[in-house]
Amino acid sequence: VEHAPYIYECVTCHRQFDPRDRILTCTDCGLVKGTLDVLYQDLEEPDRQRKSDWILPYQIGHWRYRRVLPIPADIEVPDLHVGNTPLFKAARLEKRYGCKDILIKDDTRNPSASLKDRASSVAVCHAKWLGYTHIGAASTGNAGISLAFWAAATEIQAHIFVPQRVSESALTMLGIFGATIYRIRGNYDQAFEQFARAVDRFGWYSRNTATNPVLGEGKKTVALEIAEAMTDAPPDAVIVPVGDGCILGGLWKGFCDARKMGLIPQVPRLYGVQSSGADPLVKAFDNGSNVVEPISPQTLADSIAVGNPRDAVKALRAVRLSHGGLIAVRDDAILEAMRELARLVPVFVEPASAAPLAGLIALTERGVIRKSETVVLVMTGSGTKDLASARSAASVLPLDIGTSPQDLDVIEAQLSSERRQT
Amino acid sequence: VEHAPYIYECVTCHRQFDPRDRILTCTDCGLVKGTLDVLYQDLEEPDRQRKSDWILPYQIGHWRYRRVLPIPADIEVPDLHVGNTPLFKAARLEKRYGCKDILIKDDTRNPSASLKDRASSVAVCHAKWLGYTHIGAASTGNAGISLAFWAAATEIQAHIFVPQRVSESALTMLGIFGATIYRIRGNYDQAFEQFARAVDRFGWYSRNTATNPVLGEGKKTVALEIAEAMTDAPPDAVIVPVGDGCILGGLWKGFCDARKMGLIPQVPRLYGVQSSGADPLVKAFDNGSNVVEPISPQTLADSIAVGNPRDAVKALRAVRLSHGGLIAVRDDAILEAMRELARLVPVFVEPASAAPLAGLIALTERGVIRKSETVVLVMTGSGTKDLASARSAASVLPLDIGTSPQDLDVIEAQLSSERRQT
Repeated sequence: VEHAPYIYECVTCHRQFDPRDRILTCTDCGLVKGTLDVLYQDLEEPDRQRKSDWILPYQIGHWRYRRVLPIPADIEVPDLHVGNTPLFKAARLEKRYGCKDILIKDDTRNPSASLKDRASSVAVCHAKWLGYTHIGAASTGNAGISLAFWAAATEIQAHIFVPQRVSESALTMLGIFGATIYRIRGNYDQAFEQFARAVDRFGWYSRNTATNPVLGEGKKTVALEIAEAMTDAPPDAVIVPVGDGCILGGLWKGFCDARKMGLIPQVPRLYGVQSSGADPLVKAFDNGSNVVEPISPQTLADSIAVGNPRDAVKALRAVRLSHGGLIAVRDDAILEAMRELARLVPVFVEPASAAPLAGLIALTERGVIRKSETVVLVMTGSGTKDLASARSAASVLPLDIGTSPQDLDVIEAQLSSERRQT
Repeated sequence: VEHAPYIYECVTCHRQFDPRDRILTCTDCGLVKGTLDVLYQDLEEPDRQRKSDWILPYQIGHWRYRRVLPIPADIEVPDLHVGNTPLFKAARLEKRYGCKDILIKDDTRNPSASLKDRASSVAVCHAKWLGYTHIGAASTGNAGISLAFWAAATEIQAHIFVPQRVSESALTMLGIFGATIYRIRGNYDQAFEQFARAVDRFGWYSRNTATNPVLGEGKKTVALEIAEAMTDAPPDAVIVPVGDGCILGGLWKGFCDARKMGLIPQVPRLYGVQSSGADPLVKAFDNGSNVVEPISPQTLADSIAVGNPRDAVKALRAVRLSHGGLIAVRDDAILEAMRELARLVPVFVEPASAAPLAGLIALTERGVIRKSETVVLVMTGSGTKDLASARSAASVLPLDIGTSPQDLDVIEAQLSSERRQT
C-alpha cells in the first residue's frame, strides 16, 4: 500500500509547498487567508478514476481511504475503528416534515463520540511520521477530548490548553486519557494564545484544525463514506453545523476527492448552519463577502459558539462552489430539533449537531431545499458531554410516587387521560 | 428469512412452556429458581451445523443472528446498528502484564453506549410482536437509558421506575428519549417493587433481564460475535463484570449456540468479576452452592452494585459448566484498571467494565488463567454516564497558568524535569 505523494497549495495565492517542511499556512498570505489545500498528485491524473485504485476495503474504518490521507504506508495506524459510522434513513423525520429522503450520518458513534476523531486520528499519525512526541491543542470540548484519546492510542504526549471556566466533565475526560492540562487564567481566546505560543516555543505538533491542513484531510473521510455508500443515488444536499468552518472545508475536499475517484458525478450542495447568536459566516455569505466581521458569540450550542471563525475562506468556498449556502437558526429551534432527533430517530446529540435538522426545516420552508430532494444530516457530536443542554431540551419532569400499591393510582389516572386524548 | 421455532425450558425442573403464553418464569419453580432458557428446535438438530444456515450476513449489526433470536421474520427490526462492536488486540496491555493475547470487545460502542442495547433491542421487537404498546423497567442506569432509546426507536411507550436518589444525568437521558419517569420515594428495591406491581396492574411488557428470558437472548449476541470473529482461534477465556448475573447467562447461551452452529469447538471458560463490596455470587461459587446470601452492596461500581442477584442460577451454571469461575476485586483495583484502559488501549469505561481487567490481573497471579492464553475482556458500558467515578480514576489536576508569555516558563521547567527522569 503506497500513499499518493501530495503537496500543499495556498487557497488564496495557489503557491505550492512541500509538506515535509513542517509549515502550516502560506508564508505569503498568513494565518486566515493562507490556509492550505492538500493535493494528491495521482488523484489529478485523468487515467486514475477507478474506485478500486483508491479504496482499501480490508482496512478498518476510515483508514480504507488512507491512500488519500497524508500518512505514508509505513506508518502504523491504530486499529481503533474510527469512521465507518452508521448512515441510515430517518423515516419518522421524513414523515413528520413531509420530506422524501432524510438520511442521518451518525458520527457520534466514533471512539470518543465525535467527528473530531477523524481529524485527531490522522493528526497523531502525521505527527508520528514527522517524528513528534508531543502534540498540543486549545479546546474545551470534543477536539481536546478526541486529541487526548488519540494521543493515548499512539503514545504521544497531549498538551491541552483550557480556559479558566472549563467544565469538570471536560477536565475529567482529558485527565482519564492522560493528557497534560493547562488551565489558563482567562477566556478561550487567551487559552488559544498561550497554546499558540507554547507550540512555537516547545516545538510541539499543533492540532489546530483551522491552520493545520492535515486535519481537514481527516474530516473529509465523512464525505468519502457518504459518497461511497450512496454511489448509486448520491445526495442532493448535505447539512452540517458550522463554528470555525472546518467541517465544511473538509466536506468539500472529501466530495471533490470522491468525484475524482468516480464515486459521484458532482459535489452535493453543502449547507452550513450557525446559531443566530454566533453567525458571522452567515453574514459574510449573505453579503457575498470573504471578509468576516468578528462578533461576541451568544449561544448554548458550545461547539459552534465561535465569534471569529478561523477557517472562513475554505468554508465560504465550499458553500459557494457547491451552490449551497449558510443559514442561521435560533437556539430554541436547536433545542426542539435535539428533542425530535432523540425521539424520532433516535440519536442523542449535542446542540450543535441538532442545528442541521433545524436548518433543514428552515431551508425547506424557504424553498432552498425541496422536500423531494435527498438530504444527509451529519451528527457531529454526542449529547453525553453536555447534559445541561440536554436537560433544557428534554423538558420532562419525573412523576413522584410513593411506595405503597395504591400510590400507583396516579399512573392509572394518567394512562386513562392519555387514552381519552388519543 | 424464517426464525427458528422456539420453546421455553425451566433451568431447574426442565419443564417446557410455549412462549406465546406470555409467561416469564416457571410456574412451578418461581422467580429466581425458575428462570427459563430459550431453545430453538432447529439448532438441536445434528444436521444443521453449517454457519451459513444461521447467519444473515447482509443484516446490520446483531440482527445477522436473528434466526436464533425470538423474533419472527415478519416483525420489522430498527436499522440502528446495535452490536457489530469492535473486537481488537490490546498490545500495550499485553506488554504491561506479560500476557500473550488480550482482546477487547468494546460494547460501549452501541447506540446508547452499553451492552444493554443488545437486550433492549430484542425486547422491544418481542414486545411489538406480542402486541404490547407499553414497556416498563426499574433502573437507574444503562438498562433504563437503553430501554428508553429502543422504545423511542419502535414507538412503544417506555415507563421507567427510578429511586429517589437517581442522578440528574440519568433523568436527563431518560427524558430526552421521551420515557415516562416515575421517581419512587424510596430506594432501588422499592422502585423495583412498584415496577413489578405496575407491570402486573397495567399489563405492560416487562424489561426485567433476570426474569424475562428474551433479554438474555439479546445479550447472547456478544458471544456470537466473538465466536464468529474468532472461529479460527477461539478464546480460552472470556471475562465480564457481574451484578445480577445476566451477562454471564447470556454469554453461556451465546457460546452454546455458537458451538451448535459449528463456529467454535467448545465454550470458552467464562469468568465473572464482582466488586469485593458486592460479591454474593463469588461467595456462593466458592461454597459450591446455588443458594445466594443477600448482602448490602458497598461499591462505587454502580452497574454491579447488586446485593441480591436476580439471575444467580444461570450465572453459576455458566461459570461451572464452562470450567471458569467468579472472583472479587477491590474498588481501588477497579479504578486503577479504568485508568489503564483509558491510557493503554484506549477505551473510556464505567467502573463495572474495568472489573474484567482487574479480574484478569488477579486470575493470572493465581495461575487460574495462564499468561499464554487468549482472553477476551468485555467492556459493557461507557464511562460517560458516571463522570464522578472517572474523576476518581483520572487523578490528574490541571496546571494553572497565567496569560503572559513568561507564564509558560512553568511548562518549560516541567518538561525539563520529565526529560531528566527518562
